[in-house]
Amino acid sequence: MNEAALLRRIKAGSKGLVLGIGDDAAIFRPRPGRDLVFTTDMFIEGVHFRPEAFTADEIGSRALARSLSDIAAMGAKPRLCLVSLALAPWTDDRWFTAFFRGLLALAHKHGVTLAGGDLSHLSKVVCDVMVCGEVAKGKALRRDGARPGDIIYISGPLGGWRHRPEVEPRLALGRKLIGKATAAIDISDGLALDLHRLCLASKAAAALDREPPLLPGATLEQALHDGEDYELLYTAPPGLRVPGHRIGEIVEGKPGGVTLLGKRLPPSGYDHFESHYRS
Amino acid sequence: MNEAALLRRIKAGSKGLVLGIGDDAAIFRPRPGRDLVFTTDMFIEGVHFRPEAFTADEIGSRALARSLSDIAAMGAKPRLCLVSLALAPWTDDRWFTAFFRGLLALAHKHGVTLAGGDLSHLSKVVCDVMVCGEVAKGKALRRDGARPGDIIYISGPLGGWRHRPEVEPRLALGRKLIGKATAAIDISDGLALDLHRLCLASKAAAALDREPPLLPGATLEQALHDGEDYELLYTAPPGLRVPGHRIGEIVEGKPGGVTLLGKRLPPSGYDHFESHYRS
Repeated sequence: MNEAALLRRIKAGSKGLVLGIGDDAAIFRPRPGRDLVFTTDMFIEGVHFRPEAFTADEIGSRALARSLSDIAAMGAKPRLCLVSLALAPWTDDRWFTAFFRGLLALAHKHGVTLAGGDLSHLSKVVCDVMVCGEVAKGKALRRDGARPGDIIYISGPLGGWRHRPEVEPRLALGRKLIGKATAAIDISDGLALDLHRLCLASKAAAALDREPPLLPGATLEQALHDGEDYELLYTAPPGLRVPGHRIGEIVEGKPGGVTLLGKRLPPSGYDHFESHYRS
Repeated sequence: MNEAALLRRIKAGSKGLVLGIGDDAAIFRPRPGRDLVFTTDMFIEGVHFRPEAFTADEIGSRALARSLSDIAAMGAKPRLCLVSLALAPWTDDRWFTAFFRGLLALAHKHGVTLAGGDLSHLSKVVCDVMVCGEVAKGKALRRDGARPGDIIYISGPLGGWRHRPEVEPRLALGRKLIGKATAAIDISDGLALDLHRLCLASKAAAALDREPPLLPGATLEQALHDGEDYELLYTAPPGLRVPGHRIGEIVEGKPGGVTLLGKRLPPSGYDHFESHYRS
């Protein structure tokens, strides 16, 4: 099967655009009064996943979920995605079909159109998924708005991908937080590192006065320092009713500093880039 | 050097956005009355390039040029790019810096902002470059508008990447063709295959009444069937003054059919996907 034949197969997923897959580029007509947000995430065999740990459907779904989680953290509604995929020699036609079945099922659930992409071959499976979302002008959630006194929340229990069979980017929650949350980030590399990043951007510190809720079977260590949680971490002024688990407070202090029950929490986490050197 | 340090280094290229590199997603404010076009292209060591054939600057530049050429073929102005890059063990800090120097030089030349991306590691260098461009509403050039009687043009001499030391996506020309060209495509896989694609989309055939101009040292075979030319192929009604080299005419016939000097020209070209199976 050549590229043209593969493209025909996945073209069915391309709806809601002025022009979808099949030209030099897809054409999208933005709605007035909206900002667009852009993110892209690679999902690489041996770095982000091991083929034996996931089905092809799950790999397709997770490749998209990673980027959707970023869109959720901006409070945006995802509109379209571009999927670049390099296939490894161990994949076959059935794997390819299942990969796109998993990806398109999640895309469909969240109203995301597959607008294009690229296909190639390599020794390992490499996916890169770009998602473009929309949000009311000037309203996107950012990392840099947390202020001392703000309450810190997480959207659900943590523990990392080992304890999370399903992926469920918090898109509905992200949109609900618009106008309420002062800052937001998705927890992709563990609470400790992602809270550090939010505090650094906001030029503030954080004091966690309780341990985060854990996924069944997960340890506190995993919740703090493991990756792939797809939950949101956000802050809001005290007295405001927002959904989620309250875990602490933004405080004055060295930008990026985080404490848990009064003890310093180092910003170590799952850095996919550094992990290469560690392994 | 970890991902954060690398990101700081390339953050300097992120200008002209509501919010650039450093949050979960970049924020872009589209201008009213514009459509947006989206494209992405992978550039992979051993598939699309061999490291010994190019400097790191050239690899960065070409990784972006491939996507810019798609944007040119839509008649659009590129606005932002996302760059995903997996680094191979043979690359070093100097290579990384030179890669982005090359990429950002071309980006700057064409007014493109580096809005984000992702970094990882792999056994080979893999780049995936997404570009978003803008074009007046409803005015984008497409592949499907060529009609019998239209004249066929190419923007410059052909011959493939071996004979093309510089990459120069035809962005200015693409924009000039808005309202004039009835169809356009960029020549990325050889004239024969790309003209076949344009004709297929336009449900028409093509008769080339002369050989295309060649790059110095290139053969006709390379011009017809080699890849990476970064030139545009386009059609326009007879009698209209458009820039470029006139090479033939759109005719009635089997959709996708192409003849050169009366002889059938098979749609074989540099299919990056199939080439894997051939090698």
